Amino acid sequence: MDRSATEPGSVGIVTPQTLHFAEPLTLECNRTLPSFDLVIETYGTLNSDKSNAILICHALSGSHHAAGYHSSDDKKAGWWDNMIGPNKAIDTNQFYVVCVNNIGSCFGSTGPTTINPDSIKNGGEPQVYGPDFPLVTIKDWVKTQALLSDRLGIDVWHAIVGGSMGGMQAMQWSVDYPDRLKRCVVIASTPKLSAQNIGFNEVARQSILSDPDFKDGRYLQAGTYPRRGLILARMVGHITYLTDDAMKAKFGRDLKSGKFMYGYDVEFQVESYLRYQGERFSKNFDANTYLLMTKALDYFDPTRDYAEPDDDKQAEHPIDSTNADENLSADNATDGQADNDRQHEFNALKTAFAHTKCQYLVVSFTTDWRFAPERSQEIVDALMATGKPVSYINVDAPHGHDSFLFNIPRYMGAVRGFLNAPFITNQQATKGAQS
Amino acid sequence: MDRSATEPGSVGIVTPQTLHFAEPLTLECNRTLPSFDLVIETYGTLNSDKSNAILICHALSGSHHAAGYHSSDDKKAGWWDNMIGPNKAIDTNQFYVVCVNNIGSCFGSTGPTTINPDSIKNGGEPQVYGPDFPLVTIKDWVKTQALLSDRLGIDVWHAIVGGSMGGMQAMQWSVDYPDRLKRCVVIASTPKLSAQNIGFNEVARQSILSDPDFKDGRYLQAGTYPRRGLILARMVGHITYLTDDAMKAKFGRDLKSGKFMYGYDVEFQVESYLRYQGERFSKNFDANTYLLMTKALDYFDPTRDYAEPDDDKQAEHPIDSTNADENLSADNATDGQADNDRQHEFNALKTAFAHTKCQYLVVSFTTDWRFAPERSQEIVDALMATGKPVSYINVDAPHGHDSFLFNIPRYMGAVRGFLNAPFITNQQATKGAQS
Repeated sequence: MDRSATEPGSVGIVTPQTLHFAEPLTLECNRTLPSFDLVIETYGTLNSDKSNAILICHALSGSHHAAGYHSSDDKKAGWWDNMIGPNKAIDTNQFYVVCVNNIGSCFGSTGPTTINPDSIKNGGEPQVYGPDFPLVTIKDWVKTQALLSDRLGIDVWHAIVGGSMGGMQAMQWSVDYPDRLKRCVVIASTPKLSAQNIGFNEVARQSILSDPDFKDGRYLQAGTYPRRGLILARMVGHITYLTDDAMKAKFGRDLKSGKFMYGYDVEFQVESYLRYQGERFSKNFDANTYLLMTKALDYFDPTRDYAEPDDDKQAEHPIDSTNADENLSADNATDGQADNDRQHEFNALKTAFAHTKCQYLVVSFTTDWRFAPERSQEIVDALMATGKPVSYINVDAPHGHDSFLFNIPRYMGAVRGFLNAPFITNQQATKGAQS
Repeated sequence: MDRSATEPGSVGIVTPQTLHFAEPLTLECNRTLPSFDLVIETYGTLNSDKSNAILICHALSGSHHAAGYHSSDDKKAGWWDNMIGPNKAIDTNQFYVVCVNNIGSCFGSTGPTTINPDSIKNGGEPQVYGPDFPLVTIKDWVKTQALLSDRLGIDVWHAIVGGSMGGMQAMQWSVDYPDRLKRCVVIASTPKLSAQNIGFNEVARQSILSDPDFKDGRYLQAGTYPRRGLILARMVGHITYLTDDAMKAKFGRDLKSGKFMYGYDVEFQVESYLRYQGERFSKNFDANTYLLMTKALDYFDPTRDYAEPDDDKQAEHPIDSTNADENLSADNATDGQADNDRQHEFNALKTAFAHTKCQYLVVSFTTDWRFAPERSQEIVDALMATGKPVSYINVDAPHGHDSFLFNIPRYMGAVRGFLNAPFITNQQATKGAQS
């Protein structure tokens, strides 16, 4: 049975392709991969002048498999199947859609679970990279995606689209390769992670790093994996993707057995759900990849290349570690200093965006507290202050950060409309304003 | 050096007392402690008619040591020293203040780290309770505190005061022993935990339970303790006590060494802070106690004794576990059902509060997202709907849930004023309204 025949909105059966890049790739951390593979999926048909291509960038636990099915008995469609397909918001009757698995991931592109060429250089046994895989950044990913564009012969993308960490890649594209995309769609994202975001990521990392089965990252060689650490990391992550209200609507304080058991087995339905999600994730995701992905998030800062020399500074807000046991006092940061920080960050973002040439769509969701609407509005404000064309919608949705994966008509409609609107260059826009 | 001499606002050097209760105590879980000890501290002097006594209830990691110092070279005062002392909001020149360490805790009262009498019954080696200590509830604690009141000869407390989990005890007192307190101060608390609250507690518990050094709770006998689990539990807890803004003000995205290191050692200051807090906590707190305290939080529900027979039900919101891997859909809970749930909860709270006789002060803090102002307002609304005297302030403070530990003038002033206001019985209040 071909699902594409039975499901009109589906791209049907898709087959991933692996592209090998034989040239060395130097990363932001100054380490070099001798070569690398990228696994991609494509949907729709590239037109003759190669002007209808849309690049999809994935989030933390995502992959190249954004739409369709891998076989006729595949039960689960790609992670953004409600967005991508014939007559969907990203319409594959019209666009050629490419989704790439990023390096460092665990779904086929070169990463901790693929063979380290160094291991076989002198006739040795093939070994996976494991913890020897270098830490990568959003900027590194965008660089590999630009090499992919060259390979595909796509000089200019009709649009680059991503949610959460995918939105960061889209934003970085617009800054690093301003001539190579016409539209940039940044969904449920942020100009950079907050201290709280980094804090939650650090809990997830420490969960994995402190699991005895992590074995300094060489767990696969030891025939095991840090199951407990991955479960904890996913549980805490999952809570931050949802909202208090959504969890209340779904679970409330319902008890699994109907009464208190006075023990540490599952009592509340929400415990059951989180444990199940954690367990499932731990079986399907690589721990070194999880660590590396959270670091890429923490490092993300599109203003970094445009910062003034002393910006990359140590302890702007002095912390006396001998007093770290005292309660936090907000007195340490005066309102004036906070204003200065905000202004400084805003100026840096304006500088980074100053030479971009695409038009932007920024989307946030009202209940997202991981990357709240205010963070999207920082992006919008900086773009507007630099005179860049930007549309913004804050979508009313109950699903928290996860909202970007839901089929919400206003959201889908905005993406569809934006992708189909004529491209107005900055110059044209300026001319229009003058006439 | 006597600190009390140099610090006018301090209660000075204080000495904890241990009170032994030889009678068996049956707990809500239906298990019985053959006897138990309570460790308390008292500040100020009990007046002749024993009408000036105030009971302080502690929060998750608190103890009986609320004010003053344990010795002249003690560097750290009790956990609520800014609240309790001569001429402070809870004025020890005027009131006799009692703070009790709850059973199940690890600071001297009977709990997982004290000797299980069963172990020495037949001449055996003394063993600590460890995981054999029964799970206790807020209601159990209040019951032991009532026994303590009997022992101290205090029939009626001038006030019972607590923050966070301490506020739950104060609330439970007003429901369970309506004739034994005149004033109830409920600070930064909630009528019951939300699914998100339980979710974060579950992450903390799984951190400890899955640590190989937990050894089914018999870690002390094994000469170890679940250090890694306790660190993780505290890290995630700590993030929920603070706010995104407070963390931004304190740490921002400051780097410890001034540059990215591309590894998993501490890079951001916020990581350093969280690791330090976790490490310190792991050395001072007992893991079985932490588990038990989070369970007491989850179980708290003052409406429980007043619920209708079928209220303690299973899966009110049906959850199909085979579909637990699907994204949450808020469609499962219709708006109508959510309204019903809210109304049902509100009615239950009104029923629980209907026979209370004290007057209430409820305090919340604007930036507290663990127990948000809305949760305090549920308490206030239910009290008002039942015609109970209640004052409420929502205090503007940047410190999140931790705000209740800070010296904030408006907050301290409200507590002081409330404790000194004349007691108006419900009947008097009604008379006043009629005249």
